[in-house]
Amino acid sequence: MLIIGERINTSRKEINEAVEKKDANFIKADVRAQVEGGAQIIDINAGSRAGSETEDLIWLIDVIQEAVTVRLSLDSSDPGCLMDAVERVRDLPMLNSTTAEKKRFEAMTPVIQKRECEVVALCMDDRGIPKSVEHALENAGRLITDLESLGVKKERIYLDPLVQAVSTDSLAGLKAFETIERISKEFKGVKILCGLSNISYALPERRIINRAFLTLAIRAGLSAALLDPLDKGIMGNLKATEALLGQDDYCMDYIRAFREGRLGG
Amino acid sequence: MLIIGERINTSRKEINEAVEKKDANFIKADVRAQVEGGAQIIDINAGSRAGSETEDLIWLIDVIQEAVTVRLSLDSSDPGCLMDAVERVRDLPMLNSTTAEKKRFEAMTPVIQKRECEVVALCMDDRGIPKSVEHALENAGRLITDLESLGVKKERIYLDPLVQAVSTDSLAGLKAFETIERISKEFKGVKILCGLSNISYALPERRIINRAFLTLAIRAGLSAALLDPLDKGIMGNLKATEALLGQDDYCMDYIRAFREGRLGG
Repeated sequence: MLIIGERINTSRKEINEAVEKKDANFIKADVRAQVEGGAQIIDINAGSRAGSETEDLIWLIDVIQEAVTVRLSLDSSDPGCLMDAVERVRDLPMLNSTTAEKKRFEAMTPVIQKRECEVVALCMDDRGIPKSVEHALENAGRLITDLESLGVKKERIYLDPLVQAVSTDSLAGLKAFETIERISKEFKGVKILCGLSNISYALPERRIINRAFLTLAIRAGLSAALLDPLDKGIMGNLKATEALLGQDDYCMDYIRAFREGRLGG
Repeated sequence: MLIIGERINTSRKEINEAVEKKDANFIKADVRAQVEGGAQIIDINAGSRAGSETEDLIWLIDVIQEAVTVRLSLDSSDPGCLMDAVERVRDLPMLNSTTAEKKRFEAMTPVIQKRECEVVALCMDDRGIPKSVEHALENAGRLITDLESLGVKKERIYLDPLVQAVSTDSLAGLKAFETIERISKEFKGVKILCGLSNISYALPERRIINRAFLTLAIRAGLSAALLDPLDKGIMGNLKATEALLGQDDYCMDYIRAFREGRLGG
């Protein structure tokens, strides 16, 4: 499982304050902790800062690259912002995200062609967020074809099935797991990423749902997750799941995470 | 998921003391709490009390039946003890357990024939605990045939795949899930039960492993689990998993458990 650290998001109060005050040390300490906690990619999202998103994203990229050598994911719904920021990234950037919506995909095309990159592609199109597994699969197929035609290699595409809330659709979990299973069988080579918190929207004790969801999504074939690597509960659950699925010989990784104080729950 | 409450086990210090002192009120309070917590069957195990196991088991049965109307599972490796105790049980008893070992099965035969009952059958034979999925499946098939020939209906048989520790066999989790999946496909109608704690033997923070194991085992087709219904962590995880697998319309059961203070994690 590829772990993408989600903490550098200006919708989080302390991150927004650090960006506001240009407190580079706060940001550096946070990303160092994320990397120590197991993040292999740091996601950066300044989308809440209307008016200064591009400038703030670039500042964050520069600050983070001074602190750690980890890869970066630029997380924005504004292709113009990604266009300006992508060249500041030292290593292979991840672009989060495009969709199969006609306008969005067209606007993302020059960014994707600007340099080699990994691309997160949300399985939605102009009809909206898919309500059925078939619709999600159809969007997945179209996104792969269109991204490959832009020169993006299959293994650099991360499809996001766009999980819905189980509180409003009791089949939302089953649909998500089936979508993940079928993408991994029908489109071999592509990767699958999803967020963990949509599923538990409007429910109490959301972390309990999020954790069980992560376990079942990994079983279904998830390749990467956007999460908080300092959350000992979710990380413990992730390491336990990997051990149970035969991905951790003699549970060495689980035991190491325990010894380093990174597991809880 | 059928929840079998595991707390009335004399290997637990406080239960042993209550049995020692014939403290009926302590036992009654415990089983009432288990039933309020969601237990549909109460497991009773006095196996640690060599010399007085039968007498203690019968005392526990009588005390528990005064307190609650829930079904009972008599948990003993001694067929003689089960033979004496089974007739005290008011409702359909569960007998835990037989195996496919020749002597054990023969010794259990008269108990099973004494009255209608549900039977827990461990998938082991005279070659020992199965190391492979095939061996477990072979034992499962034999146990079903032999139990049916004694008149036990398929839906009253609970096969236990005998989960091994993932710390010593990195494939133990995958083997358990495959065994559960194949039993539910190849022997339709029988039920599958397992304990949750063998999998985490010798690992730190065992409850993290146990919880993720329960989630994955339910996904594979588990019908029943022996657990502590007062453990809010495991119960939260169970309710979350049921919601994610489409078994809880609008998460009503999950939300009710939360409101009643039965979820944690």
